[in-house]
Amino acid sequence: MTAEVTSDGPAGGSGKRAGPAVHDTGAMDLVTIDDIEQAAMRIRAHVLRTPLVPAPWAGDDDRPLWVKPESLQSIGAFKVRGAFNAIGHLDESVRARGVVAYSSGNHAQAVAYAAKVFGIPAHIVMPEETPAVKVDATRGHGARVVLCGAGERERVAAEVVDQTGAVLVPPFDHPDIIAGQGTIGLEIAQNLPTVETVLVPVSGGGLASGIGVAIKALCPNARVIGVEPELAADTAQSLREGRRVDWSIQDRNRTIADGLRSQPSELTFAHLQTVLDDMITVSEDEIRSAVAEYVYRAHLVAEPSGAVPLAAYRTGAIPPGRTVVVLSGGNVEPALLREILSV
Amino acid sequence: MTAEVTSDGPAGGSGKRAGPAVHDTGAMDLVTIDDIEQAAMRIRAHVLRTPLVPAPWAGDDDRPLWVKPESLQSIGAFKVRGAFNAIGHLDESVRARGVVAYSSGNHAQAVAYAAKVFGIPAHIVMPEETPAVKVDATRGHGARVVLCGAGERERVAAEVVDQTGAVLVPPFDHPDIIAGQGTIGLEIAQNLPTVETVLVPVSGGGLASGIGVAIKALCPNARVIGVEPELAADTAQSLREGRRVDWSIQDRNRTIADGLRSQPSELTFAHLQTVLDDMITVSEDEIRSAVAEYVYRAHLVAEPSGAVPLAAYRTGAIPPGRTVVVLSGGNVEPALLREILSV
Repeated sequence: MTAEVTSDGPAGGSGKRAGPAVHDTGAMDLVTIDDIEQAAMRIRAHVLRTPLVPAPWAGDDDRPLWVKPESLQSIGAFKVRGAFNAIGHLDESVRARGVVAYSSGNHAQAVAYAAKVFGIPAHIVMPEETPAVKVDATRGHGARVVLCGAGERERVAAEVVDQTGAVLVPPFDHPDIIAGQGTIGLEIAQNLPTVETVLVPVSGGGLASGIGVAIKALCPNARVIGVEPELAADTAQSLREGRRVDWSIQDRNRTIADGLRSQPSELTFAHLQTVLDDMITVSEDEIRSAVAEYVYRAHLVAEPSGAVPLAAYRTGAIPPGRTVVVLSGGNVEPALLREILSV
Repeated sequence: MTAEVTSDGPAGGSGKRAGPAVHDTGAMDLVTIDDIEQAAMRIRAHVLRTPLVPAPWAGDDDRPLWVKPESLQSIGAFKVRGAFNAIGHLDESVRARGVVAYSSGNHAQAVAYAAKVFGIPAHIVMPEETPAVKVDATRGHGARVVLCGAGERERVAAEVVDQTGAVLVPPFDHPDIIAGQGTIGLEIAQNLPTVETVLVPVSGGGLASGIGVAIKALCPNARVIGVEPELAADTAQSLREGRRVDWSIQDRNRTIADGLRSQPSELTFAHLQTVLDDMITVSEDEIRSAVAEYVYRAHLVAEPSGAVPLAAYRTGAIPPGRTVVVLSGGNVEPALLREILSV
């Protein structure tokens, strides 16, 4: 009997879906501000309420800047919010069977860490090309890591679910994940109710969906702008065309921003269509430069994926107004960080 | 007519002290928790309330660790707390004449930044060997920078005071500065009332004095431990001997921790004797290693001076218990940071 947090199983996955999905909702019910407020209560004991850090060093009087440094979460990224909400929402008897996740990195660490806190087993499926720092960190939380080939991780994760009876916690494609990530938007709205622009990275879309729902509910006049690397700009194209456009994984893998190589699901795309006002794309050089700027001016270490909103801000292409950039994570490979800082 | 925030003029300074010192108190009146609570009210609008960041990556179950990242202040260091408290406490008519400061760096930026916020002139006296990043940052806040020879800065600052009529804001030797820095201790006690050990860098002693007063008042069972580089361990020796021992500036300048080369004044030493439970000294290699650990594990950029408490924690020489390390600042020279990270 297989329980799942997700409603979006892999196409080539197991045929043995005997059990109903746990907390499954109709696919196109969007997450609400109530869901996000409940998530905030649920995760409060385990997740850092990150500050909104004023960034006068940005030096743009027309666009006063604040940074929301999710890199300060104990796993170094925002993913811990969705993981604690999804796992915390499971019935205790289901949760006790353990959890499974597939992820290129930060979601893996988040699920591994949350599982450790809850005292349950975690099985994490990671692609072989995952940066070593993320594999090591995941193992460091006591999780079992299952390495797999590129594009295989959803299938392998389904196998692990079948073998272990543990619950799959998807990286973005579930209302509980979206609501968990949305607590960032809730905190932004509470700390800076007059915010006018929020810049957020877009990959699978869970983060942007959740933040967008919260901001639109609490600060209806604020813009929410998604940011992607030019080399993985599937969502920008998809929103322009009004339908999900598929970019090959080979294309998406070109960007240095290894956390932004996923594409939205049907569920997150429906959110993004509703809550995003615009998309901005940034070049690889702009991303690298933003990482260096974070180190030297904000004294914060951002991974490339986490620095894309600052890169977008620095292009000058955003509208005037009080602006928040979400620094989504700080787990950068040491060698890459040294390379970026040595330019 | 010369007004001063300080009560501790340079020995070789101007003889023209016609006016009374502003807010001068009897030299040995120690700062109280009331002073610190008033400071907290005074600086609230201008200073970030930094989070206490859990650091499970430290991996020491007997000494759960939290980081207080003052590097997130907009000038990159805690000094903004004392500066806003001292300048904010001046009568408006006195404040309008402007402010003078002498500092190897972070205090300079703090006074320059606070002056900009208050809309008053700032004259900052800095030694010629000050890291360029700090000189540039100070000028970037609109301050006039006066460079001077080593050991000359107090005399030159007194000259500027005489020439301009502006008010001297000392880096540590004044109750308003100590009370401002003490707000860090207040926040630690409010956020983690069960704290058992607080590790804080010691240089001129303003930071450790203020934090010590707050912690001893609010968490009387907690230990407050000062940390110094072995190469600038004048305070450790002074506390052992029960009197202020002078180390030559040549000796103190050996440490990489350029923010920890000052020595306590009579006022701060009296505080340190009262509030510090112990001192720990750390080697240069331990400091460098702590800077790298902050970058890779906490995703925070610490200057060497700011990393000494983590270096002390990592020696294992501290008692068991819930521990807070104060990360006092993040303004590290880019070349030095690259060097530390390339090892």
